[in-house]
Amino acid sequence: MDSSSVSSRDLRRLPLEWTVGHAAAASAVPSRWVPATVPGAVQLDWARAEGWPEYWKADNFRAYGWMEDVWWTYRTRLPAITVPPDQRLLLQCGGVDYHYEVLLDGREIYAHEGMFSPFELDLTEQAKAGAILEIRIRPAPKVAADRADRAQARYSAKPAVAYEWDWHPRLIPLGIWEETKLVLAPAARMTDVAVTYELDVAARTAQARFSIATTPAAEGATWHWRVRRPDGPTIASGESVVVGQSAEAKPLLGGLELWWPHDQGAQPLYTIEFTLIDRTDRELDVHQQRIGFRRAKLVMHEGAWDEPSGFPKSRSNPPFTLEINGRAIFCRGTNWVPPEIFPGTITRATYVPLLERALRANMNLLRSWGGGIINKESFFDLCDELGLMVWQEFPLACNCYPDDARYLSVLDAESRAIIKRLRPHASLVMWSGGNELFNSWSGMTDQSWALRLLNRNCYDLDPATPFIPTSPLDGVGHGDYRFRGESGREVHQIFAGAAKTAYTEFGCPGPSSVEYLKRFIPEPELWPVRYGTAWETHHGLRAWTPQEESSWLCPETIAHYFGEPENLEALVAGGQWLQCEGYKVLFEEARRQKPRSSMALNWCYNEPWPSAANNSLINWPCEEKPAFHAVASACRAVMPSAKIPKFLWREGESFEAELWLFNDSPAALDTGVLEAFVVIGQQEHLALRWEVPASAANRHVRGPAMRFSLPLNTDADRFTVRLSYGGRLPGTTTYTMPLRHAAPAR
Amino acid sequence: MDSSSVSSRDLRRLPLEWTVGHAAAASAVPSRWVPATVPGAVQLDWARAEGWPEYWKADNFRAYGWMEDVWWTYRTRLPAITVPPDQRLLLQCGGVDYHYEVLLDGREIYAHEGMFSPFELDLTEQAKAGAILEIRIRPAPKVAADRADRAQARYSAKPAVAYEWDWHPRLIPLGIWEETKLVLAPAARMTDVAVTYELDVAARTAQARFSIATTPAAEGATWHWRVRRPDGPTIASGESVVVGQSAEAKPLLGGLELWWPHDQGAQPLYTIEFTLIDRTDRELDVHQQRIGFRRAKLVMHEGAWDEPSGFPKSRSNPPFTLEINGRAIFCRGTNWVPPEIFPGTITRATYVPLLERALRANMNLLRSWGGGIINKESFFDLCDELGLMVWQEFPLACNCYPDDARYLSVLDAESRAIIKRLRPHASLVMWSGGNELFNSWSGMTDQSWALRLLNRNCYDLDPATPFIPTSPLDGVGHGDYRFRGESGREVHQIFAGAAKTAYTEFGCPGPSSVEYLKRFIPEPELWPVRYGTAWETHHGLRAWTPQEESSWLCPETIAHYFGEPENLEALVAGGQWLQCEGYKVLFEEARRQKPRSSMALNWCYNEPWPSAANNSLINWPCEEKPAFHAVASACRAVMPSAKIPKFLWREGESFEAELWLFNDSPAALDTGVLEAFVVIGQQEHLALRWEVPASAANRHVRGPAMRFSLPLNTDADRFTVRLSYGGRLPGTTTYTMPLRHAAPAR
Repeated sequence: MDSSSVSSRDLRRLPLEWTVGHAAAASAVPSRWVPATVPGAVQLDWARAEGWPEYWKADNFRAYGWMEDVWWTYRTRLPAITVPPDQRLLLQCGGVDYHYEVLLDGREIYAHEGMFSPFELDLTEQAKAGAILEIRIRPAPKVAADRADRAQARYSAKPAVAYEWDWHPRLIPLGIWEETKLVLAPAARMTDVAVTYELDVAARTAQARFSIATTPAAEGATWHWRVRRPDGPTIASGESVVVGQSAEAKPLLGGLELWWPHDQGAQPLYTIEFTLIDRTDRELDVHQQRIGFRRAKLVMHEGAWDEPSGFPKSRSNPPFTLEINGRAIFCRGTNWVPPEIFPGTITRATYVPLLERALRANMNLLRSWGGGIINKESFFDLCDELGLMVWQEFPLACNCYPDDARYLSVLDAESRAIIKRLRPHASLVMWSGGNELFNSWSGMTDQSWALRLLNRNCYDLDPATPFIPTSPLDGVGHGDYRFRGESGREVHQIFAGAAKTAYTEFGCPGPSSVEYLKRFIPEPELWPVRYGTAWETHHGLRAWTPQEESSWLCPETIAHYFGEPENLEALVAGGQWLQCEGYKVLFEEARRQKPRSSMALNWCYNEPWPSAANNSLINWPCEEKPAFHAVASACRAVMPSAKIPKFLWREGESFEAELWLFNDSPAALDTGVLEAFVVIGQQEHLALRWEVPASAANRHVRGPAMRFSLPLNTDADRFTVRLSYGGRLPGTTTYTMPLRHAAPAR
Repeated sequence: MDSSSVSSRDLRRLPLEWTVGHAAAASAVPSRWVPATVPGAVQLDWARAEGWPEYWKADNFRAYGWMEDVWWTYRTRLPAITVPPDQRLLLQCGGVDYHYEVLLDGREIYAHEGMFSPFELDLTEQAKAGAILEIRIRPAPKVAADRADRAQARYSAKPAVAYEWDWHPRLIPLGIWEETKLVLAPAARMTDVAVTYELDVAARTAQARFSIATTPAAEGATWHWRVRRPDGPTIASGESVVVGQSAEAKPLLGGLELWWPHDQGAQPLYTIEFTLIDRTDRELDVHQQRIGFRRAKLVMHEGAWDEPSGFPKSRSNPPFTLEINGRAIFCRGTNWVPPEIFPGTITRATYVPLLERALRANMNLLRSWGGGIINKESFFDLCDELGLMVWQEFPLACNCYPDDARYLSVLDAESRAIIKRLRPHASLVMWSGGNELFNSWSGMTDQSWALRLLNRNCYDLDPATPFIPTSPLDGVGHGDYRFRGESGREVHQIFAGAAKTAYTEFGCPGPSSVEYLKRFIPEPELWPVRYGTAWETHHGLRAWTPQEESSWLCPETIAHYFGEPENLEALVAGGQWLQCEGYKVLFEEARRQKPRSSMALNWCYNEPWPSAANNSLINWPCEEKPAFHAVASACRAVMPSAKIPKFLWREGESFEAELWLFNDSPAALDTGVLEAFVVIGQQEHLALRWEVPASAANRHVRGPAMRFSLPLNTDADRFTVRLSYGGRLPGTTTYTMPLRHAAPAR
């Protein structure tokens, strides 16, 4: 059952009261039942019943460890109901996390492994009033022999992030996480719908294929289909009789308005309505869905067929330029991670402020990272509406998922459910097998059966949407994630020396604000920052690789530029300054390399719980960090930019930077003027005035280098370079850097 | 219908006499009918009727040009036959080349595009005695706008080679090319069979799955299945009733002897028998097929996970080491091309001498190249028996096959037919999408729908056999194809400076023998060699790229080493010497780089018509060139080898070469002695005696360098280095090089 079909029906819903309890074995009965919120998570239900404090404060999450390893059972009692003869009593569930059985009066009626497959059970014949319905969830899947980290997830389709990541605590959610309801539904109804199309971009026509499957009771009914324009009028309709529990239509739809990412055009969403009608003209069942018409491809970038000079080609410089409706789109965006540890708590209201901010940050693509969940339907609905493109990964990350029949059968079912649910969405522009699978620590290759299976399923169910096996591929960059790394290499040099086809992960960490830190770090642990405190639990310290013990706070880097901070406020101010300026430099350099480079996606956008420090731009649940605004600035489609060689400058030094005008817009730009100022204290100096020539659509303009002698004997400890562009789309870009007075400090 | 199933039945065959004629349009009736040989080719039938000379002599092939563009019709009259009530009258056809309709008394009853799909038509109800059966073949598929070369094949599944290649004339075969017969078959019979298994190598058990589909008349019949050991006894059997036109069994087979390539072990072929039996115990239908149990994988070579130092990995050094039954196998082999221009003439007798010679040449793998046909069943039967592994490509080569629904539907049907036919063969160890598709002149990428479709079909129908999208992939080498190329680089330097994961194409051209040349080059054109003669038609000149006008004879290279030849005999002798020594150097260097390198496959093994010069080892139809013996020497599993830096030496020069003992065998080697001699005229000098240490199975041993001062003032114009290894598997390797007397000639 396609969940968008489920959700569009106006069914009579019957109330269910759920309780939940746990036991040590499948055969044992829980000794205590507590009220359960559905959808939700067993952990939250239990904690609520026990009156526990917030899981996200200090190291409270540790209290939940045992919950991974017990058997949880949800229980409810069916209401007294007489099912009319032309109706059926259905249990409709969007998803249960993770491996579970459904029991009716103790008898198993359904079982499934995997949180992403919805299911529908017809209880009409079996359910007596007062029957006990249970959903019994097995302990979290683990490869027993492995250490307690992501490797334990390598035999399952459970998102690996919950097993611990460098910004996620070890806390594995379990429970009914998607909407689950008991309904009275028409006996004659649609059980599956499919809408696919092949788009002729130039002609603005789509050869569409609509099909339905029905229950046996719908045999002989009339199926009406209708396509409505975004503003209401019908552009095509038809009807046919349901024969053999199915019906199909292949209309050619003309005069279409195409769907575009928000920075390239409009987001017209057509409505498709399917109605089943019986012989007396009575409406039996209705399905409604929206559709945006667009064509997505991954193509080689300009010049890629010339590299290397020999052959083969196309893998060292893989096709990674996203083309929408035949137009190459530079993707400015970010990596999206689960916005909550417990996905059952996510609603449309969770997504709205996050996605609206992505739009405000001038981003056009979100990479929905393979370590996390597949988002709920409202995420994709919103992306369709907002014109935000989504790169969706399957739930594989940083592991070697095996060529094993049992695992592959789970992945097969889960991936099919995911593809069928998401394919109607115009915003879904590319699929990826998962995160960082072609690495020595994961050990997968193009021969891995899991990746061949995913390529197969995407080709079968959604062939027109590109598929890549993983990110990064050769020629694509992940990293770095530091402002200043080995041998003093700064963000300014990392990309300047690279030539990637796409930068699909890069990070620059920064601490959360003082006020925010105080909410979850106990007062005595706040200052000075120490190992073994909530600073560590909340990924300010010992978060990343063993070599990067100070991540993500990186106090030694802050001290390197600004000296040892005297207090928490100074530490945070320094760290946030670095994160802001680092992200500007990274985004802008990745953009400068267009058209070789085609994507700039930072790691990461959001976070699922409060971090002490992180590469994120938005603190959980939705609080903008200063870096959010820096990235919003660096992602404007049209903007002036300076290629700045380093961060720290000395009095008297000659500041030099190459000037650029970025244009990712689909419009050509007229001539304009770009003025470069250096601001020191109250003094503002015009360093260069550049008459920017006219530029073609979607083309940057490379300009002259500005040069300015930084003064001696100033009181200022910093200076700002301000670029002011006065063309048709005016804008200002600023960079603030420290100014060192003494002789070289190192 | 699985063709191996068809062929295993003992059906009553009815005689058919075919004629063939041509017309200018589909609607026109041929004005003349000539006798047709089935299987065969329309070109051969017509030429026979016209009394034309051999197509393969001189430039006679040009007379066939018009035959591409007309409509050919095969015609036969059905015999008078009364079909018994429990039987059916079937037309069974293994394949028609290329796009055709079948007509019965002028009415179309079947149509198909593609030569690789067999078909079966039940004529029982429709065929009256004396009815006219026709197979009407459309003109050869061509992209009309393209020039008359392989590009014309880029919209079809027709093998591209016939459109002209650097060793194949423009001559596009058409016709019924596979066995085609009218039979009386039981009404209750199997229509499809599938045998798959998952092998546990260590336990020598296979979890098998046997399934059949049947005609409706077989409903309720009993299906017996039986597995026999190669020596006869049954190891497993069972039976079940056919329900809903199908039956299935999933036996676990134990105590299996595994199938190995011939240099690694035995080739036990089990027999699987399926029998349908009715209620009176009468045998209705029988299917028999052989099966060899083996597991094939493509894995990363030793050390590949360490390169590059960063990530991603696994694409720059792709998994290209073929592992059979868990053992890494170094593949010594060659590229197989169609053994005839007209595939309809190929029989088992065509394959036998060619494949037996591959065995004698110590080869263990044939790459069945994507520009050519998929071979007939007997090819794979022989490879199963001989222990020759096959890498099979689909019919895509050097073109950009489009993301086009019509083309993809043809490729889908053809590839499914190919996979279903070949998958029972143990010898079939890897699939490839086609030849050289990731190049600027072909322009395909991992995003190409044709390649995603082929991955899908292979994964659906034969998941356990590896699939690659094309060859070469990054890290894999195709080329070079010259003894001496730009700036004087010789075969000795080409691979010595490379570090490929596999060398899957490399060539060294050589002329055919004088006696052979005389058979197809008219006497007046034989000498001196000139452009515009049969030397050019038969690919001795202007065969390859425009820059290589002298290919494949390369007379300037011959003259460079040996001076201007005085006659044809001297030219041929010089060219053959270069081919022999060139191939030794190339094969041995590719082998020396094991385990990074995992394959050494030269271009090419055979040829479809007589070449004046070619990279081939065997002249059409099956005559060994001297290079055949050189390659046989260089492909011995255990052999001494010298790494020789160049070809041409001068008197007084110090000859130096590193000594190696190659061991590709599954056995460890004891200590042995390797003696290196330099033979000049009648004089033999022992240059080095090396006590070779014991070596592990499948491991080469690198030895010391031999050094020898070439004498001054000798009469000899050449010298031979002879390596004599006296271990458990003794062997001798020789290399003969020219000795220059005068001062440096260049």
